[in-house]
Amino acid sequence: MSASRYTYLGPEGTFTEAALRTLPEAAPRELVPMVSVPAALDAVRNGEAAAALVPIENSVEGGVTATLDELATGAPLMIYREVVLQIAFALLVRPGTKLSDIKTVTGHPVAQPQVRNWLAANLPDALWESSASNADGARLVREGRYDAAFAGEFAAATYGLEALVTDIHDAENAQTRFVLAGRPARPAVRTGADRTSVVVWLRADHPGALLELLHEFSSRGVNLMLIQSRPTGEGIGNYCFAIDAEGHITDRRVAEALMGLKRICPKVRFLGSYPRAGVDPAEVGPTARGMSDEDFTAATDWIARCQDGRG
Amino acid sequence: MSASRYTYLGPEGTFTEAALRTLPEAAPRELVPMVSVPAALDAVRNGEAAAALVPIENSVEGGVTATLDELATGAPLMIYREVVLQIAFALLVRPGTKLSDIKTVTGHPVAQPQVRNWLAANLPDALWESSASNADGARLVREGRYDAAFAGEFAAATYGLEALVTDIHDAENAQTRFVLAGRPARPAVRTGADRTSVVVWLRADHPGALLELLHEFSSRGVNLMLIQSRPTGEGIGNYCFAIDAEGHITDRRVAEALMGLKRICPKVRFLGSYPRAGVDPAEVGPTARGMSDEDFTAATDWIARCQDGRG
Amino acid sequence: MSASRYTYLGPEGTFTEAALRTLPEAAPRELVPMVSVPAALDAVRNGEAAAALVPIENSVEGGVTATLDELATGAPLMIYREVVLQIAFALLVRPGTKLSDIKTVTGHPVAQPQVRNWLAANLPDALWESSASNADGARLVREGRYDAAFAGEFAAATYGLEALVTDIHDAENAQTRFVLAGRPARPAVRTGADRTSVVVWLRADHPGALLELLHEFSSRGVNLMLIQSRPTGEGIGNYCFAIDAEGHITDRRVAEALMGLKRICPKVRFLGSYPRAGVDPAEVGPTARGMSDEDFTAATDWIARCQDGRG
Amino acid sequence: MSASRYTYLGPEGTFTEAALRTLPEAAPRELVPMVSVPAALDAVRNGEAAAALVPIENSVEGGVTATLDELATGAPLMIYREVVLQIAFALLVRPGTKLSDIKTVTGHPVAQPQVRNWLAANLPDALWESSASNADGARLVREGRYDAAFAGEFAAATYGLEALVTDIHDAENAQTRFVLAGRPARPAVRTGADRTSVVVWLRADHPGALLELLHEFSSRGVNLMLIQSRPTGEGIGNYCFAIDAEGHITDRRVAEALMGLKRICPKVRFLGSYPRAGVDPAEVGPTARGMSDEDFTAATDWIARCQDGRG
Repeated sequence: MSASRYTYLGPEGTFTEAALRTLPEAAPRELVPMVSVPAALDAVRNGEAAAALVPIENSVEGGVTATLDELATGAPLMIYREVVLQIAFALLVRPGTKLSDIKTVTGHPVAQPQVRNWLAANLPDALWESSASNADGARLVREGRYDAAFAGEFAAATYGLEALVTDIHDAENAQTRFVLAGRPARPAVRTGADRTSVVVWLRADHPGALLELLHEFSSRGVNLMLIQSRPTGEGIGNYCFAIDAEGHITDRRVAEALMGLKRICPKVRFLGSYPRAGVDPAEVGPTARGMSDEDFTAATDWIARCQDGRG
Repeated sequence: MSASRYTYLGPEGTFTEAALRTLPEAAPRELVPMVSVPAALDAVRNGEAAAALVPIENSVEGGVTATLDELATGAPLMIYREVVLQIAFALLVRPGTKLSDIKTVTGHPVAQPQVRNWLAANLPDALWESSASNADGARLVREGRYDAAFAGEFAAATYGLEALVTDIHDAENAQTRFVLAGRPARPAVRTGADRTSVVVWLRADHPGALLELLHEFSSRGVNLMLIQSRPTGEGIGNYCFAIDAEGHITDRRVAEALMGLKRICPKVRFLGSYPRAGVDPAEVGPTARGMSDEDFTAATDWIARCQDGRG
Repeated sequence: MSASRYTYLGPEGTFTEAALRTLPEAAPRELVPMVSVPAALDAVRNGEAAAALVPIENSVEGGVTATLDELATGAPLMIYREVVLQIAFALLVRPGTKLSDIKTVTGHPVAQPQVRNWLAANLPDALWESSASNADGARLVREGRYDAAFAGEFAAATYGLEALVTDIHDAENAQTRFVLAGRPARPAVRTGADRTSVVVWLRADHPGALLELLHEFSSRGVNLMLIQSRPTGEGIGNYCFAIDAEGHITDRRVAEALMGLKRICPKVRFLGSYPRAGVDPAEVGPTARGMSDEDFTAATDWIARCQDGRG
Repeated sequence: MSASRYTYLGPEGTFTEAALRTLPEAAPRELVPMVSVPAALDAVRNGEAAAALVPIENSVEGGVTATLDELATGAPLMIYREVVLQIAFALLVRPGTKLSDIKTVTGHPVAQPQVRNWLAANLPDALWESSASNADGARLVREGRYDAAFAGEFAAATYGLEALVTDIHDAENAQTRFVLAGRPARPAVRTGADRTSVVVWLRADHPGALLELLHEFSSRGVNLMLIQSRPTGEGIGNYCFAIDAEGHITDRRVAEALMGLKRICPKVRFLGSYPRAGVDPAEVGPTARGMSDEDFTAATDWIARCQDGRG
């Protein structure tokens, strides 16, 4: 039964739901909003859901650090898919409200930087108060507590509101990346345009540890796509790093880099290899010189010959 | 008038207010709570306040990324002091409430990981809902919307509540670091136990840029205390890094490392050098071999002699 | 028949012969002096000898670069043993000669720095002329062309001379390292105190190539014992590097470093793994953290589990 | 009087003399051949000569290591000019000798690899014996001891011989680099196409020392043109490194790299900055991004502004 259910960071009408609905495998399933990232992921850990979609990068829903911390600790989960969504806000109001009627606005705290300039230009006197989520803000508008809420345009219908203004965003390229996490199993199949995610703990007594970690990737020509420090909860100054690298764990250069991490770091958690959203394998650039699977195989063969006296 | 006022991340009764009250220079001043980190800092930028205390590291109030992003962008500010506070939660209830009465609890989302284990052990059936801040949660308890709120014990008096349980925290060493930010001026005087903060942008087209950046510090024996990636708002995968290094900008090794960053990075913002909270300069370890001010001076003298033919 | 013969850099009476006689395996064999390092090694390549002993490091006989260049190019050879000899010169004279009789002295050019101070103090007016080898100098003394020659004390008997002064050397610790080279076959058995020799060519168009090469060793905790640049013969500024590393090719960390070189360098030649002369395996320090064979095996197992979904 | 005299590695008729005669400043001076590199340089140290020309790189005369060791130790000298010479050998014979008459040949040992292939093809049965220098070999041919000598074609006249074959060399691009060394004084004036030479000692107890040394250059975009390890005379495994870098000590990036070496290495000896032979400053490529003098000045100004509160 759980295989028929996906959870996501709710409530209904958030960007996360919109992202989940872009996945073909979500279509036949029951999609259940959860109150928090931990709740969405715990449902997977407990077997109540097959997978959970949660935001992981670029802060619109504020879910990023919660997601990274959840994936880094607790019972292991793995990532099998990613979704990248362009983020733009609509100003949701009760039907009939005009711009000049708006005295109070709400939205999630992390939406504020995205709409700040728009507010200054269009509603300079409106009072901003934060809500727990964009969708929650929409609910509070419907209840009359605020005059307008910033949320995804798709949330208007859910809450009986109207999108007075759409496509509000400050950054030219506002996006959020979401990941579909399930219980550990074989990684997604290699496509040639893949991303590999790990969490790595550093030895606190070793100031050069981060440099060494980065060298494990760079010395094998593996590009990093994300590096995000997170406190380990063991006091100020203790970090682990969430790292996304280009490539798949079955690529030799990636596997060797991960083995390097495993040897030099006190702890490494593999979070999965999965297809990069919206990237065609045919467009992926060439592998760094000497770092293809063929190069690794040739080097392994050479060492064997040397050890046999046929070098 | 503004010199007599400090702002802080409100509302009243948060850990930030508690942290601010530990600073001697706060005693004679008017302390004004603001609704958000941007609001607290904008009051300084606008000249309405002399300085603002905001959380910057380790997530209890959720202010970390907001603070980093605010300091990285907008009109420049500088850090002059830091405060480190042990974080422990109290379970605040309306007077008379017993543990067995509690069906609903609230608190800021980032408090949840700190209290999760305690909840599972002591209130396994209580329903958690997030509030916009710990103090806001306390207010909602007073208003009867929830039965209990996690917040600092000091918030009980402010909101007419009672601390039913105190010293709740999951991590052994839960701390939050706060910084006092003002308009740019001369850095705080060097004490010998100092911290220097910068924000550094990387060239997106250069995969080894982070390695080079770290080398500017490591090659001069400068330890890093914080490295936090932040999206630049120019799309997924574009980062800047908030970095705290040991030492003061007037230490030659620190100045040279910063100049190295300035040369190789498209943008660097200096956020200040200031005394490390709770660290006695007498206890700071020795400078790395060859990296004292005397070593830098000796090298400069030697080059001058070489250029004069007296090497 | 050739298996019964070892060649060495002659003529008779050089330090190389003395070094060869310290090897137990030399005792039953015919030891044949050759006029040059290339000649000694070519005899092995041609099958006329089973192995050749030639000096490789620290310049007393001047053979170092000739040896490195011979091992780097031409038909491949491999090193199976090393000998380290303390080097001290004797002043050889025709019987009856007194110090005050000596007007002219000779010796190999590279001996000169070792005896220069002694000459300045004891024979300040003697005229130095170079000879083609120390032993050749001894021969020229016997023939009456010079009054005295610097050579090994053991050469006195060969040439019918007398050691007037012994133990002459400038450096406190003058040593020469010799290697026994044979045709390629299985490397010498690992002892736990081993040395691995390679020659590595760098890509001329890549200024950071040497740094990358060194990282292949340092990132795996492999110490280098020798790094010697040699011109490749393709014009000024084109180099290959003779490198000796601690450890044996069957040590995982060494094998991985060599495979790294193989991938990033246009050419690598494996010259052998062999026991370090005079080093007791019991006295070799511990392997760098994370770099033992067990650590490599554990990392390989972990990757396999990750790829199987059991990470 | 000494200012009118230059010494060089003799005897007359060597490639070194030919190189010296290409220098305009040599024309009016007395050119004195010396028996060895140390003798040529000591004449400068003693004030008997103004400067000495000695081979330093790529081994035809065998002077390379002798020169490096002499410049690294003893009373300091500095390099003011370099000369690069194409090296090709002539087969010098007594007038009338035919190729078929030649049974014995001689030459400096380091000439042998350059002529080996030619010998194998043209005089497979000739017996090679080494001489102390190429010119000395010519002398021995004149005296009848050998039938032919390999030397520079220009040596034929000096020794009354005839060049039977010319332009013999194995490597396509055989060159020798010579340097003109004098007593320490102001470096040669910057031309924009300069070379800077240093000798650097490494801390023996620090396996990563060579890596750190190379980083001082690479992190400032300074290319290396030569890196040559030399034993320090303190036992096998103790090295110093002769290093040539692109650029002039008055280039900020070079000065900063040298100061870095001065701080991290137990000893650095500056050997001079001087024009690159045969390189037009107009053809020198652009400085690495961020590493021009303007970039260094901008970074210094920025730090000063930060320290003043005007960052």
